[in-house]
Amino acid sequence: MKTIEIGVIGLGTIGTGVVKILRDNREIIEGRVGTKIMVSKIADLDTTTDRGISLDPSILTTNAMDIVNDPRISVVVELIGGEEPAATYLLEAIAKGKHVVTANKALLSARGAEIFQASFDRKVDIGFEGSVCGGIPVIQAIKDGFSANRITLLFGILNGTANYILTKMTDEGRTFQEVLQEAQELGYAEADPALDVNGTDSAHKLSILLSLIYGKQFTASEIHTEGITTITPLDIEFAQELGYRIKLLALFKDDQGAIEARVHPTLIPQDSLLAHVKGVYNAAFICGDAVGPTMFYGRGAGMMPTGSAVVSDIIHICRNILKGSHDQVVPIVTRNDRQLRLKSTNLVKTKYYLRFSAQDRPGVLSQISGILGKYSISIASVIQKGREVFGAVPIFMLTHEAVEENMKGALKEIDALPVTSAKTMVLRIEDEFDALI
Amino acid sequence: MKTIEIGVIGLGTIGTGVVKILRDNREIIEGRVGTKIMVSKIADLDTTTDRGISLDPSILTTNAMDIVNDPRISVVVELIGGEEPAATYLLEAIAKGKHVVTANKALLSARGAEIFQASFDRKVDIGFEGSVCGGIPVIQAIKDGFSANRITLLFGILNGTANYILTKMTDEGRTFQEVLQEAQELGYAEADPALDVNGTDSAHKLSILLSLIYGKQFTASEIHTEGITTITPLDIEFAQELGYRIKLLALFKDDQGAIEARVHPTLIPQDSLLAHVKGVYNAAFICGDAVGPTMFYGRGAGMMPTGSAVVSDIIHICRNILKGSHDQVVPIVTRNDRQLRLKSTNLVKTKYYLRFSAQDRPGVLSQISGILGKYSISIASVIQKGREVFGAVPIFMLTHEAVEENMKGALKEIDALPVTSAKTMVLRIEDEFDALI
Repeated sequence: MKTIEIGVIGLGTIGTGVVKILRDNREIIEGRVGTKIMVSKIADLDTTTDRGISLDPSILTTNAMDIVNDPRISVVVELIGGEEPAATYLLEAIAKGKHVVTANKALLSARGAEIFQASFDRKVDIGFEGSVCGGIPVIQAIKDGFSANRITLLFGILNGTANYILTKMTDEGRTFQEVLQEAQELGYAEADPALDVNGTDSAHKLSILLSLIYGKQFTASEIHTEGITTITPLDIEFAQELGYRIKLLALFKDDQGAIEARVHPTLIPQDSLLAHVKGVYNAAFICGDAVGPTMFYGRGAGMMPTGSAVVSDIIHICRNILKGSHDQVVPIVTRNDRQLRLKSTNLVKTKYYLRFSAQDRPGVLSQISGILGKYSISIASVIQKGREVFGAVPIFMLTHEAVEENMKGALKEIDALPVTSAKTMVLRIEDEFDALI
Repeated sequence: MKTIEIGVIGLGTIGTGVVKILRDNREIIEGRVGTKIMVSKIADLDTTTDRGISLDPSILTTNAMDIVNDPRISVVVELIGGEEPAATYLLEAIAKGKHVVTANKALLSARGAEIFQASFDRKVDIGFEGSVCGGIPVIQAIKDGFSANRITLLFGILNGTANYILTKMTDEGRTFQEVLQEAQELGYAEADPALDVNGTDSAHKLSILLSLIYGKQFTASEIHTEGITTITPLDIEFAQELGYRIKLLALFKDDQGAIEARVHPTLIPQDSLLAHVKGVYNAAFICGDAVGPTMFYGRGAGMMPTGSAVVSDIIHICRNILKGSHDQVVPIVTRNDRQLRLKSTNLVKTKYYLRFSAQDRPGVLSQISGILGKYSISIASVIQKGREVFGAVPIFMLTHEAVEENMKGALKEIDALPVTSAKTMVLRIEDEFDALI
């Protein structure tokens, strides 16, 4: 049986998982591939920490270029994350004719087009299933399983940390800060959770999916992004009373070529399948024009789930190597020259959830609703509860579909009123699931 | 741009969908494949019925062998269903070096090993994504996305008709017969719904998934199969009271190589994600040792969803043709010689739901529980409701885990008691979802 040698750059959580899976499931993997897969070199700046797996010290190096330059290595697996030096390692490996695997969402989000093009030109494979939704084969589904479809909609819960925090806040009525702190203590949230809770990580992943779907590079910076840090138990409780759950969604809609893409906390119907995605789980609800609505669900991060995606990419590449083949017939990203743009956020129409902080005085509601009317924003329902919170009474409101630009204008005026005592809380609603399932 | 010619055998619902998708999404498909795909011949016994799409009459034939024998055709798509003559067409096409696509679950369930081996020997591709779960790329996930994993469990809602009927019975409290009749009138159930409601169709699909997972042919006849025809609104209502939904599950579990596979109506926790799969939708809940629990959800049948899977297979094959490659490095089914057997149903251990039809007399429960005790079956809970139905009082019981063989013995004795007036209703429970999610 032939042996294919691979090199792993980065022996953190995922790298350790990759080595572990290749070892634990060696027999079934060899049976499926028809070849042996040998991790012949591992690079990490820290080669002394105990990773919980026994490793032959002679395969460890602190210099990633030892892997990139090793002529026996056919597949380079990059798992260090971040843009540089990861990009250099990948591009150098590709230039040397090596196939590459990466789970690096930040890098692909920013420079995917360049890296995909390099692999296409050099006729080598690039696997990146682990970059979105961990072990769930969403990228494969878009590239292959749904290749017959025009993808018309995607609603993704793409960040497990944010979903864990929102789930805990919902189930236990606790504040964002309390739950975040606990999650950090339990190791479910990073010491610096900013990218997870401010939506950036979800935007990275959405941009990769968009780039695949449209064959054009979209970067996270083009995607309107809001996080979950300002959500209060009051918002969650009121959303629940009205039949909604609040989820951090990365979503896109294609309405006859006008593409909307955004990341923000969203009210979705609590009886929808997506609302039942709890804890650290991820899900992607994807509609294609032929296949209709679908959903993929599973663990979106972690040693073994992401390791599973990375190893499946390695297996796929090894099968190609045995056949003397590679994947890409046309480059993944081909249309950088084409006029394909995201719709301006100002023009997006959605339903809104609003929580005003108003002084308990007569006429407040009349002033607020007058301003909304002036901006053509129509009220679907309004509830004022008697509770005074920090000297103000919350007024909850749901609107019919309104244009974002109008909402911004209205809220600027409302927040400047003498009778409002804090910035209005604004969330968007996506409740047309019933039309889809 | 090169043109690849394909032939379609069978212009029924799915065949029409395939032609429609290739036509409607021609531009994006060509962009993704890098070639034109032309349906150059279509065979059907009936070439006159209006299918709702305009077709050049010169490409229509009533003789499928016109397609198999056409040297210009590279890909033969078989969509007539049933074992013969479908098998002959596929094997002849493969023998001529053509790639094949099929959505024929009955055929692959019975003769998959032979057909897969033929395609392997002849170095041609075989696509069969449409044979299980319609448009949901479950086969791709098992072959590729989860290739790094030992698959340890699968709970599948694999038949949309059965799920539609159970959903309606649950939501509207109606009987099986009433809902079936309505479903037939609405076109959601076939005129002869036997394969759907007796579990056979689900067993076909489970046998295909098992064959893929283990690389060994399993046929539907090896899988213990029960349908949903005997489920009553009483069972559904009582299950709900206890926090369960009844679903027709096709399931398998791998406990250290001891494989259980069965198809039967099953009580599952009503707060599990699978319990929320409603109407004609399908879902596969799959656990791998690395990836953990995952779920795939979508439409499992119909013109466009299954058409989506068939066209994605065609696209995949066309990409391979352009590269001069094909998929299989090792045969899909390799281990027919190995000792790999399903566990005997008699040895399976599950929790049970029992509904006894007892006469309203003192001492009945004592007799029933005495017999259960004799067979080492331990009772988890019991409820006797005052209602008399057809001269008997239903006694509902949930048991702890019991061995199937013991349950059969106990029920034989109980059903022979003078105080029981009808055969005991027996359903199995799978409620250890919490450990998985």
